[in-house]
Amino acid sequence: MNPRSRVYIVGAGSGSPGYLTLEAVDVLRRADVVVYDRLIPARVLDYARPDAVKVYVGKAPGRHSKSQDEINRILLGYATEGKTVVRLKGGDPLFFGRGEEECMFLLRHGVPCKVLPGIASPFAAAARFLIPLAGRGFSSSVAFATGVTAGGAPLPRERIRALLASADTVVFLMATRIYEEIIEAVLEMRGDREAVAVIEDLGGRERIALGEASDPRIRKHTPRPPALIIVGGAARWAMEREERSGYSW
Amino acid sequence: MNPRSRVYIVGAGSGSPGYLTLEAVDVLRRADVVVYDRLIPARVLDYARPDAVKVYVGKAPGRHSKSQDEINRILLGYATEGKTVVRLKGGDPLFFGRGEEECMFLLRHGVPCKVLPGIASPFAAAARFLIPLAGRGFSSSVAFATGVTAGGAPLPRERIRALLASADTVVFLMATRIYEEIIEAVLEMRGDREAVAVIEDLGGRERIALGEASDPRIRKHTPRPPALIIVGGAARWAMEREERSGYSW
Repeated sequence: MNPRSRVYIVGAGSGSPGYLTLEAVDVLRRADVVVYDRLIPARVLDYARPDAVKVYVGKAPGRHSKSQDEINRILLGYATEGKTVVRLKGGDPLFFGRGEEECMFLLRHGVPCKVLPGIASPFAAAARFLIPLAGRGFSSSVAFATGVTAGGAPLPRERIRALLASADTVVFLMATRIYEEIIEAVLEMRGDREAVAVIEDLGGRERIALGEASDPRIRKHTPRPPALIIVGGAARWAMEREERSGYSW
Repeated sequence: MNPRSRVYIVGAGSGSPGYLTLEAVDVLRRADVVVYDRLIPARVLDYARPDAVKVYVGKAPGRHSKSQDEINRILLGYATEGKTVVRLKGGDPLFFGRGEEECMFLLRHGVPCKVLPGIASPFAAAARFLIPLAGRGFSSSVAFATGVTAGGAPLPRERIRALLASADTVVFLMATRIYEEIIEAVLEMRGDREAVAVIEDLGGRERIALGEASDPRIRKHTPRPPALIIVGGAARWAMEREERSGYSW
């Protein structure tokens, strides 16, 4: 392997181009090649050198998208040429980001690799709408779960229930397809009054529905992806503080 | 209230000054006053204007530290004078950071307030040691819990067990005092072979112990705060990939 080869797998954060970290900007400026996903804002790519090669590997409706294997090969190919490669991903690469797969593939082929963390979407949503994910007294524990498990199967009902039974706050990601089951489980296990926040299109139109699980605005909602569903402690904290409407500006 | 009053409650991230976000740097540069905690690196404060007032409110062994109430009053006092105040906190302000309390206090007093997210310590640790917190197949769900609940009581044993029963990966923060109970619960509920990672002094000496729960290096360990204890899926992924020792450089 070329001694100059290296790949940075970089979290660009979610919700705002301003959430890019200084270290991410630093490696972007040094990159010969930037391999990026669909959710990366154009402003973020502007930190790369004008002569850097930019390779789009994201998925878009109706367009051919690269498989994980193709992406791995692209990263390895440029690295083998001795390039400094930045692999830009939305959110955090190691939080439902598959950064670990790309990194292991490279390491197995002798390419040095390093991951830089990013602001994952629940943290961006929390700041945007003042929904404190975790804090003593109202949310001593918070669990994050994807609505789709390995192989594409929906999160099993018993798993939804176990999470609701153990963590004060439960955040569901990529779970719009099982929204009804989640609300049903909340009503059964935590009662009509439990608080739910549904945040849609973070970084875009940024809509929030916040209310009790039995409230028709929540119960009959049909969230569209990408959405975050926050149940319990954190949502309750926010619901009980209407004066937070003066939040942000 | 002075129309120019505003307070930004800013997450400075954990583990590296390079994890500061661009938006955080932007508000730091505009701040008249910076109110900061113990874990904020000096390099971060350098982004503030030389003439900005810097107020230290962190706790240090043997030194008087400000109470939450005093901190609230300090923020309100400067804001009332029409200052732009940046309240810098380690990690993320809404993830065990009490940012929501400070923000609500200000909003109740008519001061506009906004939270900017930061890289929380588990995400910094994950990137530092290539321990993927969440991903399909090995960690579809991850729970974070503090070892100390409201009022200073340790996390009850049944709560430790419920978390281990529901989430693939469980991350314990501020939990060195209940380390033995955690390992005991892991051994009972998940067996001798379950993987545990203990990460100490992130951003400092950065030590990791990674192994099976029954391994004396884990079972007989006495972690010193600040430490993160990662149990299950994410730690198992890392343990099964010894070749990741080529990770980072």
